[in-house]
Amino acid sequence: MTLSKNRIKYIHSLELKKNRKADNVFLAEGPKLVGDLLGHFSCCLLIATSEWLSHNRHLPLEDVTEVSEEELSRASLLKTPQQVLAVFRQPEEIIDFSVINHSLCLALDDVQDPGNLGTIIRLADWFGIEHIFCSPNTVDVYNPKSVQATMGGIARVKLHYTSLPELIGSLTDIPVYGTFLDGENIYGHPLSKNGLIVMGNEGNGIGEEVKQLINHKLYIPNYPADRETSESLNVAIATAVVCAEFRRQAASL
Amino acid sequence: MTLSKNRIKYIHSLELKKNRKADNVFLAEGPKLVGDLLGHFSCCLLIATSEWLSHNRHLPLEDVTEVSEEELSRASLLKTPQQVLAVFRQPEEIIDFSVINHSLCLALDDVQDPGNLGTIIRLADWFGIEHIFCSPNTVDVYNPKSVQATMGGIARVKLHYTSLPELIGSLTDIPVYGTFLDGENIYGHPLSKNGLIVMGNEGNGIGEEVKQLINHKLYIPNYPADRETSESLNVAIATAVVCAEFRRQAASL
Repeated sequence: MTLSKNRIKYIHSLELKKNRKADNVFLAEGPKLVGDLLGHFSCCLLIATSEWLSHNRHLPLEDVTEVSEEELSRASLLKTPQQVLAVFRQPEEIIDFSVINHSLCLALDDVQDPGNLGTIIRLADWFGIEHIFCSPNTVDVYNPKSVQATMGGIARVKLHYTSLPELIGSLTDIPVYGTFLDGENIYGHPLSKNGLIVMGNEGNGIGEEVKQLINHKLYIPNYPADRETSESLNVAIATAVVCAEFRRQAASL
Repeated sequence: MTLSKNRIKYIHSLELKKNRKADNVFLAEGPKLVGDLLGHFSCCLLIATSEWLSHNRHLPLEDVTEVSEEELSRASLLKTPQQVLAVFRQPEEIIDFSVINHSLCLALDDVQDPGNLGTIIRLADWFGIEHIFCSPNTVDVYNPKSVQATMGGIARVKLHYTSLPELIGSLTDIPVYGTFLDGENIYGHPLSKNGLIVMGNEGNGIGEEVKQLINHKLYIPNYPADRETSESLNVAIATAVVCAEFRRQAASL
């Protein structure tokens, strides 16, 4: 079967948030990622090579188009198209702030790079963090670059876009952590098993309003401490080091 | 002054390794990064707005072109061009394997993504790792995307492209670490202040030949240990968690 120009145009249109939002959908590509997501999200449309389809005959899929690799590459947003692409329905989000009382959650204050967001979701998945609260200006999780970078983590980690000052203001007696250059050495600071870890924008860090609401200021020490180094870590890298240390402490208690 | 078409073409040509190699140069963009690199690398050519130049009159620069922001955007490889771009000469590398005897170094076995490589250089800089040994198939450090992602770390961290089996084979009594899904929990494993940490390719991990030469197999525990999660961490993320733990242990000794 061949792909219509309209269909290719539609898939490419999903690079833009407004088009994803209009239909409440998102795009994912590749056998590993699509395979992971098929069990978690409703699939509206799937385009695959005969090779992929021959291994997935058992799936109850509705709108399926079998294409050649060459045709797939015309629809794909990837540099190296991989056998299958699918359009999924965005799940409906139900926000329950009380998860912060009994589990460790992340909050992202205007993270802008889709690759960083996807990488953060992937590592949150690894470290058992199930909820990420994002400021309204944080990049859209359904950006195709974010989705690809999650490597399937988007199926397990839930994202909630909401005002962070309002969210934090609604919490009582909950530890709220953030990293700052003048924070306390994270390795000397007892870390809890619940609460919120706030990570900031790539260029500007955590915004002033949110900063005022953080009651545990942490610092990831560089090495050796007196050496001239870069001024900061990439936000996904810093998130990973912080989450790893929370989980190390939790496991050693 | 206006930019000639040839000059714009030349700058764009530096996206390709063979063109960078032909002239032994690389490209960097933005006031922060170019400012950092000017103190460390020889600059062959610089294109900047009057705003940037007015703040940098003191620099002894040779081939400088003042351009409008619009013209800069025609030369730039960035989505959002930033005041200045510069072409630098690649430094001559002098490899001295003995650094591994007395300091902690990284080895990258076919890391493919330029963003990952740049991010690893940036975090190596933070954690005081001054030498990274790369397998010949590792992506070129002078790829513009790598250079940008280092955020200046490329000025301090030295990269050496060499056969990893030969390198490791030449070492005696040096700990060689790598991360594996069946490795030992890194938090229960005493880590040394010298040696080599090997990180693998994004899709395939550490190659078979190098794997045989690793004498400390480590594992970054997920959380909680019995939960279904993604199967792996991004290579830059894993590198960060490992390096942070080496430095935590070193600082607490």
